[in-house]
Amino acid sequence: MCQLLGMNCNVPTDICFSFEGFCARGGKTDDHKDGWGIAFFEGKGCRMFLDAKSSVTSPIAALVKRYPIHSNHVIAHIRKATQGEITLENCHPFRRELWGRYWVFAHNGDLPGFNPLDLSFYQPVGTTDSEKAFCVILETLRKQFPLKKPSLEELYPVLEKITRTLANIGIFNYLFSDGDYFFAHCSTKLCYIVRQAPFAAAHLIDEDLVVDFSELTKPEDRVAVIATTPLTDNEVWTHLKPGELLAFRDGRVISVE
Amino acid sequence: MCQLLGMNCNVPTDICFSFEGFCARGGKTDDHKDGWGIAFFEGKGCRMFLDAKSSVTSPIAALVKRYPIHSNHVIAHIRKATQGEITLENCHPFRRELWGRYWVFAHNGDLPGFNPLDLSFYQPVGTTDSEKAFCVILETLRKQFPLKKPSLEELYPVLEKITRTLANIGIFNYLFSDGDYFFAHCSTKLCYIVRQAPFAAAHLIDEDLVVDFSELTKPEDRVAVIATTPLTDNEVWTHLKPGELLAFRDGRVISVE
Repeated sequence: MCQLLGMNCNVPTDICFSFEGFCARGGKTDDHKDGWGIAFFEGKGCRMFLDAKSSVTSPIAALVKRYPIHSNHVIAHIRKATQGEITLENCHPFRRELWGRYWVFAHNGDLPGFNPLDLSFYQPVGTTDSEKAFCVILETLRKQFPLKKPSLEELYPVLEKITRTLANIGIFNYLFSDGDYFFAHCSTKLCYIVRQAPFAAAHLIDEDLVVDFSELTKPEDRVAVIATTPLTDNEVWTHLKPGELLAFRDGRVISVE
Repeated sequence: MCQLLGMNCNVPTDICFSFEGFCARGGKTDDHKDGWGIAFFEGKGCRMFLDAKSSVTSPIAALVKRYPIHSNHVIAHIRKATQGEITLENCHPFRRELWGRYWVFAHNGDLPGFNPLDLSFYQPVGTTDSEKAFCVILETLRKQFPLKKPSLEELYPVLEKITRTLANIGIFNYLFSDGDYFFAHCSTKLCYIVRQAPFAAAHLIDEDLVVDFSELTKPEDRVAVIATTPLTDNEVWTHLKPGELLAFRDGRVISVE
């Protein structure tokens, strides 16, 4: 299995604090040490860092922890290999272009025996079930909306339907974004927190580190952090229900119905 | 305009030395300071670093210079914007998936007024002529070989034909690879050097730095470095002729006829 970390905000925010705690799970406080990756959207652009090394030993992870990259949409992943070797092409997140946008996907779970044969637009490069599922999702969306990106209201039910089909195969927690829409799906385990005014101090579970967000934020800032398990021990995290597919915008869950 | 740097080797090699000199052109010895990027293939996997900052000020470029990533196929780019704003999505190299492989492309030149309208598989995310040309190349290859990746001998003439069409529009020097095939096209300016036994010392033009490759290599190693203009002042670089499309493999130019 693996672990997921996501962030969605109303102003570009750095993820250094959360990533510090998350990284520790890649070989220090937990054993998800078969590679890691992180994607930052900056406008339509997308910057990704991937490494087949563990996140606690990777010099690139050290840079990401130290160098504040400001983004409204971040998806990160630390890997404990179930399907697919420990190679760079099997590191999440995965990225493809659709409708002139980069789409990024990271998965926590396992889809035993999953082997879609009817992919025509998108082919997996690596050998993970996760990348295959990502290709199936994009292929489904592309076939349904061949010409241009649909509204969130149009896209959501199509994504929900293919997600349900895939989640029937196994465990399928994921994060999925194009730097505009941001989705989090819970199959077994995923939680989130929304930080907004009045901001307070937060203490990491995996590192003895405290950040007082009231010193770093403006009153109107709002940041949602999504993770496989809570990253802090002095805040209340909301657990998603199995089967729940949430859409985030501007740092909070939005209703798409 | 921009500058290109590529490397193709028979054993995974780091590009730290060449990248050091190349980076200096991004604001120190030259004015290509509107962003930079580099792609490293590791097997089928591809690791990319992009930044809209100049390569001389970017902390990520500092990491790439310092941290030896070993790869057989590298494509790098420093940008001086002609078309498209200075944003992350306009930084080269660009990447898309085709036939289950990542394809990477970087361009030096300018295609005035180029605006292809008939793209169906690949859409540009940014606003550069370069990314549009990349989409046209992939689209052409995909339509010609819809099912699977062709042999180099099959692919080359199709690539050459679409390259000629695009080069008629303006200046079109490029590097293009999927981590297996590696192409360099000269429209106006591109050169390369093949380093092989007996190895000697090389001195950068843009930084006062010497590396004695005889101390770092095995006799069977072979490395081709491709750049817009020579990076060293004590080696003989071969200039490509305008219109030449070279294929590299295992650190040397191969004949595809």
